[in-house]
Amino acid sequence: MIDPVALARDLIRVPSVTPDTGAAQAVLADALENAGFRVWRHLEGEAPDGPVANLFARKGEGGPHLAFAGHTDVVPPGAEDGWSAPPFEARVENGILIGRGANDMKTAIAAFAAAASAADTGDGSLSFVITGDEEGPATFGTKALLSWMEAEKQIPDHCLVGEPTSRERFGDMVKIGRRGSVNIWIEVNGAQGHVAYPHMADNPITHLVEILSRLKARVLDEGNEWFQPSNLEVTDLEVGNPAHNVIPAQARARLNIRFNDGHRGADLAAWVEETAKEVTAKANVTPIISGEAFFTGPGAFADLIAASIEAETGRAPELSTSGGTSDARFIRSYCPVIEFGLVGKTMHKFDELTTVADIEALARVYRRIIEGYFASPPA
Amino acid sequence: MIDPVALARDLIRVPSVTPDTGAAQAVLADALENAGFRVWRHLEGEAPDGPVANLFARKGEGGPHLAFAGHTDVVPPGAEDGWSAPPFEARVENGILIGRGANDMKTAIAAFAAAASAADTGDGSLSFVITGDEEGPATFGTKALLSWMEAEKQIPDHCLVGEPTSRERFGDMVKIGRRGSVNIWIEVNGAQGHVAYPHMADNPITHLVEILSRLKARVLDEGNEWFQPSNLEVTDLEVGNPAHNVIPAQARARLNIRFNDGHRGADLAAWVEETAKEVTAKANVTPIISGEAFFTGPGAFADLIAASIEAETGRAPELSTSGGTSDARFIRSYCPVIEFGLVGKTMHKFDELTTVADIEALARVYRRIIEGYFASPPA
Ligand SMILES: [Zn+2]
Ligand SMILES: [Zn+2]
Repeated sequence: MIDPVALARDLIRVPSVTPDTGAAQAVLADALENAGFRVWRHLEGEAPDGPVANLFARKGEGGPHLAFAGHTDVVPPGAEDGWSAPPFEARVENGILIGRGANDMKTAIAAFAAAASAADTGDGSLSFVITGDEEGPATFGTKALLSWMEAEKQIPDHCLVGEPTSRERFGDMVKIGRRGSVNIWIEVNGAQGHVAYPHMADNPITHLVEILSRLKARVLDEGNEWFQPSNLEVTDLEVGNPAHNVIPAQARARLNIRFNDGHRGADLAAWVEETAKEVTAKANVTPIISGEAFFTGPGAFADLIAASIEAETGRAPELSTSGGTSDARFIRSYCPVIEFGLVGKTMHKFDELTTVADIEALARVYRRIIEGYFASPPA
Repeated sequence: MIDPVALARDLIRVPSVTPDTGAAQAVLADALENAGFRVWRHLEGEAPDGPVANLFARKGEGGPHLAFAGHTDVVPPGAEDGWSAPPFEARVENGILIGRGANDMKTAIAAFAAAASAADTGDGSLSFVITGDEEGPATFGTKALLSWMEAEKQIPDHCLVGEPTSRERFGDMVKIGRRGSVNIWIEVNGAQGHVAYPHMADNPITHLVEILSRLKARVLDEGNEWFQPSNLEVTDLEVGNPAHNVIPAQARARLNIRFNDGHRGADLAAWVEETAKEVTAKANVTPIISGEAFFTGPGAFADLIAASIEAETGRAPELSTSGGTSDARFIRSYCPVIEFGLVGKTMHKFDELTTVADIEALARVYRRIIEGYFASPPA
């Protein structure tokens, strides 16, 4: 039987600032092997986006197959004097665990490991899908591990991601979907000239302002029952023209669209490109799709998770699709995926913390989910 | 009698890259004193915009009083291997004078000095208003010299500026006005936040795009008989946000308005500020008026100059208000001002040049203007 708080502290004490190249996963691998899991460890990719350590672990060979997904890498701690306790000491004081990864998300990995070591899984399979690069470029992370799992026929039937989805109180929110995200660069080329002779120049800023104005004018959608409206924000403008009297040759903007399940990233990128080309032929549009929207929706799997939380906390969680992206954007292509974890208020900040009581409660909720899953598998 | 080509070459051989701190003006002072002028020399201002040498010279004490205005500073020559002859050698080859200042505008100063040394000025006064900082910030240049002239009761009745106004052929264009120019900085402050939570942020780029869109939508005017339409160009955008997922806290733009005599710089700046404040209270607008529009217009003074050119070249010049600003923007507040000089096609470039024939023709035109002015002073 794994103690979730002890394992969480052991994991936090390995300062696996993104990417984890294996040090923290070695600690996890030992614990899972002792709990009866078979563990596969991979080190993938090269600089600058690698190498990255990924870990897959499985107990059981039959179905159904429930996976837990998470990451052992953490964001940098920042200046140590911003912390009440050293970020990699994993100090527990007055029932509070402080440290980098205390809610995002070494604690959740430890809680699921504890639940897995205690729960009855029957003839089914339980697995861990753990990456060392969720906070970084993610090029060689969960995406690469899923490709390997597919080739090895290790794809689960359902997946639970342990990101800290609780907002104010433990158990108050579950994510049953996430919006997609696409970053788009617009570069407009004009013709440089003197401001006194605008007819001999072609000001790219004039075109860029018109393009951005048209893009902002479109209401992408009104949202739906489960998703807030899709939204476009211009996140950067760049010209870099030091000369007051000169019309510049080029102007650039970067924008980000967060979109719900009514859109696809490629369609939105095509719309931005069309809009830009309507204004000027000399526009170049470069999209990078961070992730498509996913929506697992309410249903048996969500009900199981919500019921497990309510049984433990006495309160029904909100089923939400709010917030940023997570590695669920990759998992969605393979199986239904839902996210549930600790309160994330201090994630990525100084004094990242979680109460010991919440870690233990999370382990109990995870155990209820596992046992409920194998007792009565969702469709 | 001053030889215009010889004096022009002597002036060019002093490499007075802006600001002239006195070296080139010493050469001019000698020539003018020999020609009967009383010379006042001033060194004004401190770093970074000074010190700057200015020169005032006057022959005669009565009225009317005609002034010639110009500058002895030149723009930097750039890499010497871009030149066919060293930029400060003032080489004459095949009837062409090559050198920095060959048309902008040491030659024009020399041509007017030659004309002044030969012409009959009757009981009137002829003066030189020469600055060493027209190409630079101009903080301590013509503006400062005019203040001194006003205090000393040396303000002329009319002023001729010797900038290279001819476009294709010597004598084809006279400037009887110039548009004004104002640079305006717009800074919009918002509230930083994550792109996934736009309702918790306030994107300053959204406001800035709206402000610029409204500004560009206004037709400032349709132009008039003498001026082309006023025009606004956005010359720079700056956000500098490296984070794809972050709504930035601030966005900045710089714009330039070239405006005709139907506007004043301060009114345009007030309009930009009002427009910005309509969009967001958190906009700061900072105008710097480079110069107001001036329009001396057609009339006796312009007729005298045009007739002098036609008598010499056989062709009537176009009276124009096109192009950039000049120090006439300062002189306009004191007396009617018109600009006429050599062909400016090579100004500020490698191989700045003028034919010897044009320099001599310019001296003859200037002499006709001087003699015509004192024979029959314009109202
Ligand atoms: Zn995380
Ligand atoms: Zn000039």
